[in-house]
Amino acid sequence: MNAEIISVGDELLIGQVINTNQAYIAEKLNAVGIFVDRMTTVGDNEPEILRAFESAFSSHDAVVVTGGLGPTHDDITRSAVCKFFQTNLVHDPEALRNVKELFERRKLAVTKLNEDQALVPRGCTVMQNSLGTAPGHFFEKDKKFFIVMPGVPSEMKGMMEGFVLPYFEKNPTGVVIRHRTLKTTGIAESHLAEQIGDVKSILDDDSGTTLAFLPSPMGVKLRITVRGKKLSAVEERIHNVEAKLRARAQKYLYAADDEELEHVVGRILTERKLTIAVAESCTGGLIADRLTDVPGSSNYFERAMITYSNDSKMAELSVPASFLEKFGAVSREVAEAMAFGIRTKSNTDIGLSTTGIAGPTGGSDEKPVGLVWIGYSDRHETIALRFNFLNDRRRVKERTAQAALELVRRKLIKIT
Amino acid sequence: MNAEIISVGDELLIGQVINTNQAYIAEKLNAVGIFVDRMTTVGDNEPEILRAFESAFSSHDAVVVTGGLGPTHDDITRSAVCKFFQTNLVHDPEALRNVKELFERRKLAVTKLNEDQALVPRGCTVMQNSLGTAPGHFFEKDKKFFIVMPGVPSEMKGMMEGFVLPYFEKNPTGVVIRHRTLKTTGIAESHLAEQIGDVKSILDDDSGTTLAFLPSPMGVKLRITVRGKKLSAVEERIHNVEAKLRARAQKYLYAADDEELEHVVGRILTERKLTIAVAESCTGGLIADRLTDVPGSSNYFERAMITYSNDSKMAELSVPASFLEKFGAVSREVAEAMAFGIRTKSNTDIGLSTTGIAGPTGGSDEKPVGLVWIGYSDRHETIALRFNFLNDRRRVKERTAQAALELVRRKLIKIT
Repeated sequence: MNAEIISVGDELLIGQVINTNQAYIAEKLNAVGIFVDRMTTVGDNEPEILRAFESAFSSHDAVVVTGGLGPTHDDITRSAVCKFFQTNLVHDPEALRNVKELFERRKLAVTKLNEDQALVPRGCTVMQNSLGTAPGHFFEKDKKFFIVMPGVPSEMKGMMEGFVLPYFEKNPTGVVIRHRTLKTTGIAESHLAEQIGDVKSILDDDSGTTLAFLPSPMGVKLRITVRGKKLSAVEERIHNVEAKLRARAQKYLYAADDEELEHVVGRILTERKLTIAVAESCTGGLIADRLTDVPGSSNYFERAMITYSNDSKMAELSVPASFLEKFGAVSREVAEAMAFGIRTKSNTDIGLSTTGIAGPTGGSDEKPVGLVWIGYSDRHETIALRFNFLNDRRRVKERTAQAALELVRRKLIKIT
Repeated sequence: MNAEIISVGDELLIGQVINTNQAYIAEKLNAVGIFVDRMTTVGDNEPEILRAFESAFSSHDAVVVTGGLGPTHDDITRSAVCKFFQTNLVHDPEALRNVKELFERRKLAVTKLNEDQALVPRGCTVMQNSLGTAPGHFFEKDKKFFIVMPGVPSEMKGMMEGFVLPYFEKNPTGVVIRHRTLKTTGIAESHLAEQIGDVKSILDDDSGTTLAFLPSPMGVKLRITVRGKKLSAVEERIHNVEAKLRARAQKYLYAADDEELEHVVGRILTERKLTIAVAESCTGGLIADRLTDVPGSSNYFERAMITYSNDSKMAELSVPASFLEKFGAVSREVAEAMAFGIRTKSNTDIGLSTTGIAGPTGGSDEKPVGLVWIGYSDRHETIALRFNFLNDRRRVKERTAQAALELVRRKLIKIT
């Protein structure tokens, strides 16, 4: 089964918003055996929308449309859908209930514009929107599908997960496509490629199997893709390729698929009943932010200090004034003192610290922008590692946070 | 002049890579008066590529193609371009020099595959690639343009900035397009629409001017777009529409274009020589992370405490144990005590705090997931505001951080 994704919205055409919906939808449709072979973006313009609908629906088994379902004058997808299917709008009582409930919970009055959000094209199955006011439309016609969802990513994802994907799981398409992503960090793409060696010997020359290297600032991802007819055979192939990759690069593989480094670290801390506290300077709270993104993190994350000023480093973490004077705030000695200070003060098993020059100013020849020290302290040792990140301010923060969490992971599982 | 962007690559169709090229190209073309009204993505498949070329070139003044110019078997854009223009490949000596130089610098041997990268379609102007081996192709035919660039973002950007944009600056299209985005927060889209009222009266029924409402979890953006022939007239229209919007919704407008709330808050704090410290519970460091994303934030951001545990709230912020017992950690009293505690401890002008139930667990009937108290303290007052965010964990953190920074902004400029 092939599909085209159509995104509607002027904000996409002027480059104001990067389209993340298309990649998400394509990946999820792949998982239920639907292959996207075309993606189109058009503006809030009825003739253009209708032209895209006609072209897509005439050449594809499924069309997935997002965007333009909101309450204001520039949201015209719903009326275009009505024209396309030569139907009209009807009130959906459940959608209206949903709108009213949402506004009640927010303690806001429901306006006429809001109530109109409960109008849907006659003849579709209504996909309710648990995160917003615009319902989605699911048309099935002559074994073909026409699916319309809001452009707000969270609302679209809610409908994909709550309705579209379950539908195709119950009504399988006969083809199975599976992806598996293994995540590495702390190794360059070319070095990882050398470590892994001959890709053909890993894929067994199977044309339905591919391996892709995907570099990013957080590390290089390895993506295995397998297409086939039987789920069990496809999953077995994924499993075999993964095993070969693990045999060659296990040390660098910290997680798979959607799992992030903070989940892995959190899982190990939970299993071992260990606690952590963080003292951040250059990362400015990003490590704490990532650690607390994990549900249940309050079980192991005790506290963090964002000690930006020298005063706060001394007062909160007992960093000796002499260290700051002699070695400077960005130094091995201060990183170690911060990690030790936060651990002992918070009475946790692990203390983690960062101090560096995020830029764009504040660098010198001796200590350039991007110089970072990451400190780690547990009952047995207190150490610090030096990094040089050649990036802009945000990127330095991101790469430092990633390297700090990876340091904790490696210490926990005794990789050095 | 209108344009279509065509992206070529299987990696885009399976959702492996998010397409950031389209947004970049669209924004840059807008700036030289070229309006993108359609974006298309197709796979590494010749019939699909040719179909997209034909459809785009027949209905647009300019077509911009990226991707599929690499050296391996799945890169077929170049041969499709030759078929489309019924031409053949010729060697470009400068491109060959570039390939050889690149490999010399990397101390690698040049293979036949690499040398073939210097083959270009006869009849195009060659755009050299300073960052990679694949040259770009620039066709001008009957006042129409067909531009082909690599898919690697840095290489594509190099060609846009080095060749495409300078070309259209030297050969102006006669049209000027300008955008202006005004950002609001703390008001629902429908309420903002009511506040603003009749859109037509704001736009003066000018067909070259549009106003879009763009909702996001951080707030609703208002985007003004003006197309015209003279830059001065276009800018004046933008200015007039902006003034009318400001007259109707000034209170909610916190920034324009690329400026974020943390920049606005940082600018006001800097101007007034004020300092801030933050005590975060449910936001887990996100407010500190945002504040420290701003270069120079060390001038006003003194420290933050991420006090996740009750112990840390008492020890670090002097929150009375009796408050935690009697009112619970998520309460007005604790939010106020946290804001007051961090301000007095850090000796800053402002103290800001958050405490809430980020979820997915930990909620109750009385205190559901998404309940948040935000505390604010300065020399004159200590207050807390209650919010209910109906979202997932990350979204609750994001919306809380945004509402907290907005509270500071409003207090600083005396909006209540």
